[in-house]
Amino acid sequence: MNTDSTICAISTAAGTGGIAVIRVSGKDAIDITSKVWQGKPIGQMPSHTAHLGRIVGPDGYVVDEVVLTLFRSPRSFTGDDTIEISCHGSVWIQQQIINLLIAAGCRMATGGEFTQRAFLNGRLDLSQAEAIADLIASSSQAAHRIAFSQMRGQFSHRLAQLREQLLEFVSLMELELDFSEEEVEFADRSRLLALATDIHTEISRLEQSFAVGNAIKNGIPVAIVGETNVGKSTLLNTLLHDDRALVSDIHGTTRDVIEDTIVIAGTLFRLIDTAGIRTTSDVVESMGIERTFRKLDQASIVLWLIDATAPTDDIHTTFTRIANATADTTRIVPIINKADLATANQLTAAADAIASHLPQAQSLQISAKSAIGIDTLQQRICALAALPQNDANEVIVTNARHYAALRSARQAIERAIDGLRNGLSGDFVSQDIRETMHYLGEITGEITPNDILGTIFSHFCIGK
Amino acid sequence: MNTDSTICAISTAAGTGGIAVIRVSGKDAIDITSKVWQGKPIGQMPSHTAHLGRIVGPDGYVVDEVVLTLFRSPRSFTGDDTIEISCHGSVWIQQQIINLLIAAGCRMATGGEFTQRAFLNGRLDLSQAEAIADLIASSSQAAHRIAFSQMRGQFSHRLAQLREQLLEFVSLMELELDFSEEEVEFADRSRLLALATDIHTEISRLEQSFAVGNAIKNGIPVAIVGETNVGKSTLLNTLLHDDRALVSDIHGTTRDVIEDTIVIAGTLFRLIDTAGIRTTSDVVESMGIERTFRKLDQASIVLWLIDATAPTDDIHTTFTRIANATADTTRIVPIINKADLATANQLTAAADAIASHLPQAQSLQISAKSAIGIDTLQQRICALAALPQNDANEVIVTNARHYAALRSARQAIERAIDGLRNGLSGDFVSQDIRETMHYLGEITGEITPNDILGTIFSHFCIGK
Repeated sequence: MNTDSTICAISTAAGTGGIAVIRVSGKDAIDITSKVWQGKPIGQMPSHTAHLGRIVGPDGYVVDEVVLTLFRSPRSFTGDDTIEISCHGSVWIQQQIINLLIAAGCRMATGGEFTQRAFLNGRLDLSQAEAIADLIASSSQAAHRIAFSQMRGQFSHRLAQLREQLLEFVSLMELELDFSEEEVEFADRSRLLALATDIHTEISRLEQSFAVGNAIKNGIPVAIVGETNVGKSTLLNTLLHDDRALVSDIHGTTRDVIEDTIVIAGTLFRLIDTAGIRTTSDVVESMGIERTFRKLDQASIVLWLIDATAPTDDIHTTFTRIANATADTTRIVPIINKADLATANQLTAAADAIASHLPQAQSLQISAKSAIGIDTLQQRICALAALPQNDANEVIVTNARHYAALRSARQAIERAIDGLRNGLSGDFVSQDIRETMHYLGEITGEITPNDILGTIFSHFCIGK
Repeated sequence: MNTDSTICAISTAAGTGGIAVIRVSGKDAIDITSKVWQGKPIGQMPSHTAHLGRIVGPDGYVVDEVVLTLFRSPRSFTGDDTIEISCHGSVWIQQQIINLLIAAGCRMATGGEFTQRAFLNGRLDLSQAEAIADLIASSSQAAHRIAFSQMRGQFSHRLAQLREQLLEFVSLMELELDFSEEEVEFADRSRLLALATDIHTEISRLEQSFAVGNAIKNGIPVAIVGETNVGKSTLLNTLLHDDRALVSDIHGTTRDVIEDTIVIAGTLFRLIDTAGIRTTSDVVESMGIERTFRKLDQASIVLWLIDATAPTDDIHTTFTRIANATADTTRIVPIINKADLATANQLTAAADAIASHLPQAQSLQISAKSAIGIDTLQQRICALAALPQNDANEVIVTNARHYAALRSARQAIERAIDGLRNGLSGDFVSQDIRETMHYLGEITGEITPNDILGTIFSHFCIGK
């Protein structure tokens, strides 16, 4: 990583806007920008001040009238001298300014390179840096809350606490080792075991939080299932306020699994429309039905739709197949669709059919087409989501890399605990504890190799 | 127009970016923003300073860590107190901040409302305000140059000079009127006539510059014509580095007129692919051919393509039709396409055919498919464009509203000149001069009605 060069990039969203912001950062940011700047000398500006001036090419051509803001090292996002140029939002102007800066000695920043510099300059640790990408990508309050807390260092703080406990453990162990010739056990092994068990509990909790964290970040999977033509795609479209899925009166219109996300009451859901379940000789449709059942296994919530106006004899078979494929039948929401078109008898028959399979569940009556009962359905979905609400002190892991490191750390601490229980010699146990610390250190970037760093930051957008 | 309210908007391009900028402007900008701000009190910040802090909801929920920059009245773009909030570029965060600002008392800005306030506060006149929209939309250096010069007030300055001359004229006329009872002609009518003629010349020049200005802004029209299957669509795609037009070996593939723009050496060109010219019984194709001939009339440059490898007997008829439809045959560039596949004899025959119709023109040999000779063709197109180069003092009108006002002003000054020549009484002449001033005043917004103002700013993007 070349951190001597001064980098530049358009930091605002691509395209035409009222204004756009171009960021320049590095040890030569002031000298390089001065070459294209006409206005108060940048070297004389105090940090954190904004100045009106012009960006001018070497031929004297005035590209734009801009506001330049200077952030002097170390009081900048990257820690290096940083300049933000707020220009008119024409794509042509943005590109010209970048061209001039590059001609003056800047290099175009790679994705996430500003954040990477902030990390390398010790402005934030790796998990905080990664949280910035999550924050920018966050599309729901739940995802935002976790990313923001991680960016503010709450996760890092918890890891630092764990690290302290592990260091205490190691020092106790190693004290014992120093005197091992004398066959004295200085550290009380039962106290060590209690400490290791506490650490294990906390690491396991963090590891397990990934199931929730991942659901929050990528959306809680909600499958819409049922026989053909009961209105699954219509319900998907109604929930999305969109025409995402192809809808027709023809049985078997949806052959593949269609997914899209929606935010309800601050939580992201991933809606999964599935192929209607029926016996069919159509090979493609059969494959779609197979995929439907596989998706059920992954779904946290299953919306089971039945058509009140067209009761079928297959309903019991269909439900048995759905129930078998679903991990937890309490996650199934039975829904009577086309309720506005059904007779009272049909509605009773539908409710009875549901009750015979899910006596505990309260079925909903809706009309996906006329958007009747959708609010109630949304409330039911939210209730079943049951994500931790408003507990800002709960650290939740959302990053697959962190999850993998936590799993390795948990396995290492388990080996240490086994060692303690089996009376293994202190140096073996100590080795496992050091390994635990190593994996936790990978999360905050204390011991992360360069190639992994490159991969992490390449997922960022350019300009951040 | 309600200018008492404080307005806010996302000023950067729509979508996810590294950062986004939200702008707040109005007399209560500081008070309102303070309600959602956690950091150094905004009221205590000096103008033009940037501060790190947080945007916090009424429930204490921290939406983002942001950099806030304050521009105190009158030293801001709008002239009112203005705050720019630079936040993380998540769409969710941008929206949340806007929601909080609106809940705190802001109103969402309409398109161009910040610029409109700058105009209403006398920070710039109407033609300068309009230039900002043009600047943001500019996609070539030529368009950028004109918009930037207009924003800087060059056009306004020229209009002010004209206004001074007209005022001088009017005062001379009205001096005469005051003494009209005495039948004395104070003002030397020949001097008045000379002055009016000067003004007329300048207004006419500005009015005529619209032809060039419009071409720069919307692109200089370049028509690609020729018989079917000579490679017109292939040439369009090669020039655009794109697959804009459908290409096939089938004669008559392009039935409609296809247009797209390209920037060559800083100038915007509007390329027009046309239906191939041939005798056909296909009704749709015939209509396309008719449209081809109508487009020729509007084209500034006509690229006449012939296929070196497939000489036809119709070439003379075709060319005669093209020449008849083209206003100025010196704007026709004869091009021998598929030159890489042709024999020496075929190339000579093609050159001879061209020379028999356009003895003055130098024909080009190219291969549209293999992109041979395209650079030379681009140079020829640029040479024919013949736009005023680098004369930064030349005011060019690009706005249809300005053009209409200039035309009315020119007609009024012509009536004044006629009146002087025909010895009309001073008050009639004076009336025409005042009308000339009125139309010029419409351009800078001195006398522009509110409804016209609304229309002008509604074409701006929101946030500027």
